[in-house]
Amino acid sequence: MYRTNALRLVLGAAFVLAVGPLRAAAPPSYADLLAATRPSDWRDTDPRYTLYVELPQGRVVIELAPAFAPGHVRNILELVRRHYFDGLAILRVQDNYVAQWGDADHRHPLPAALPAVEPEFDRPIAAELPFTRLADGDVYAPQVGFTAGLPAARDPASGRTWLAHCYGMVGVGRDDDPASGSGAELYVVIGHSPRHLDRNVALVGRVLSGIELLSGLPRGGAPMGFYEQPSQRIPIRHIRLEYKVPAAEREHLQVIRTDTPAFDALVESRRNRHESWFARPAGRIELCNVPIAVRKAPR
Amino acid sequence: MYRTNALRLVLGAAFVLAVGPLRAAAPPSYADLLAATRPSDWRDTDPRYTLYVELPQGRVVIELAPAFAPGHVRNILELVRRHYFDGLAILRVQDNYVAQWGDADHRHPLPAALPAVEPEFDRPIAAELPFTRLADGDVYAPQVGFTAGLPAARDPASGRTWLAHCYGMVGVGRDDDPASGSGAELYVVIGHSPRHLDRNVALVGRVLSGIELLSGLPRGGAPMGFYEQPSQRIPIRHIRLEYKVPAAEREHLQVIRTDTPAFDALVESRRNRHESWFARPAGRIELCNVPIAVRKAPR
Repeated sequence: MYRTNALRLVLGAAFVLAVGPLRAAAPPSYADLLAATRPSDWRDTDPRYTLYVELPQGRVVIELAPAFAPGHVRNILELVRRHYFDGLAILRVQDNYVAQWGDADHRHPLPAALPAVEPEFDRPIAAELPFTRLADGDVYAPQVGFTAGLPAARDPASGRTWLAHCYGMVGVGRDDDPASGSGAELYVVIGHSPRHLDRNVALVGRVLSGIELLSGLPRGGAPMGFYEQPSQRIPIRHIRLEYKVPAAEREHLQVIRTDTPAFDALVESRRNRHESWFARPAGRIELCNVPIAVRKAPR
Repeated sequence: MYRTNALRLVLGAAFVLAVGPLRAAAPPSYADLLAATRPSDWRDTDPRYTLYVELPQGRVVIELAPAFAPGHVRNILELVRRHYFDGLAILRVQDNYVAQWGDADHRHPLPAALPAVEPEFDRPIAAELPFTRLADGDVYAPQVGFTAGLPAARDPASGRTWLAHCYGMVGVGRDDDPASGSGAELYVVIGHSPRHLDRNVALVGRVLSGIELLSGLPRGGAPMGFYEQPSQRIPIRHIRLEYKVPAAEREHLQVIRTDTPAFDALVESRRNRHESWFARPAGRIELCNVPIAVRKAPR
């Protein structure tokens, strides 16, 4: 962990680059590699599957994952279309765990047309879902890596794949009945990855920007991080889909492609960190420590 | 992830217990086991090595780890004795990473008597440091488990052991020179465990209570999460050792012992969660997902 001296603060990455040549053949850093990516190393997000969650603190952008939870995503799209979430609130912020919103007071009846959905906790491995596997193993799953910019796990023996509960992942709250998650309550992981939830609940996407607006919220004082007073809840102004938002207000985010040599190089630069601060590169990396870069689309 | 219905909120753990007998031989839950611990399953914290960090938001309690970083801990004790930290501030809150405090404006000269310390990034495995090993492996280290209530790793081949960067661990900021960490700048992990920092920096302890006062702070807008304006910094009223605090203001915290059959049972209850909500117990657990329980000493 860096000490905070003024020199480093001012000079930042440029300082690291400047001293680089003095070290024999220092490999490029993550920042170097990210700066050197080409347009084809990025993909545009799809405005039909990009949620804008508007809080008093600002905007949280979520990319949905219809390939992994098509029924839940369909329900969420329907709820957004009906303005179901508008005026609800974040009810629960549990430290080192999740922030969750929903309809605590049952004021917004669920649309009768909302279909029940099967638990979509995993799905078949399929050729149309490329999987970039990480080399260093995992405590929870036989294989881990990335599919379409999302942290994922696989079990070749059963032929199943599923999304992993890394920081920033978005899931569907449910009751004890595994089929009780409608999509009307969503949570976001804001702590150390609770991977024991994998395959127990439907993950439906990932926060692309604004996670700090959720992770920085005051924690609730009641069990499971619920706010004790309704006045402590964080109101949700509205949730909209990007394609419904006026063009001037759109984010136009891009996500790094996870099936390219450029991404492989980025992962390697994090497995073995050669920035001058590191005394001992780890030589390994755990799934949820791999950054999945997001940027504004260049104009 | 639970849905938020009023019934569950009110009934909480009692509800789980009540339905327990209906399921064939459901093993005890973590909550059951914690409630059944005996006094000998807990240890008192040592007031000479317990820091009280007083923020406007409240108190953060840190247990120091002199067995792993004796030189750094000695320096921290000396700095506390000299009131070095009093009036400094939290300078940096980087999302999914760390909160860090120090002397950004170089107003508090370090005591000349403060000795330079060797990097204490790991230490020899020793008989006086019992190690409760986890069964499920680790991405970063040959062995992981717990020593004296702290998450730790070991490499039997080299005979070394070290603390692991789990949520809530406290470390010593340093510059590029591995010997440059004096103890005057400390950071706390507030995100997914940055285990690549293991063996690169001295960990000196763990937050026992009040972590949510750090993790819930607004993130800084400058690189690395530094606050852009000095006015955004969070002032530290003072840092004191527990034994210097008037008796009526002490916390008297106890930490679960990690070398007992009771702890083994608690870990197992988290490896395989049989609470009625879980459709598929993981059957495994990763080091930083194991809770290390803390409580107020019973009167």
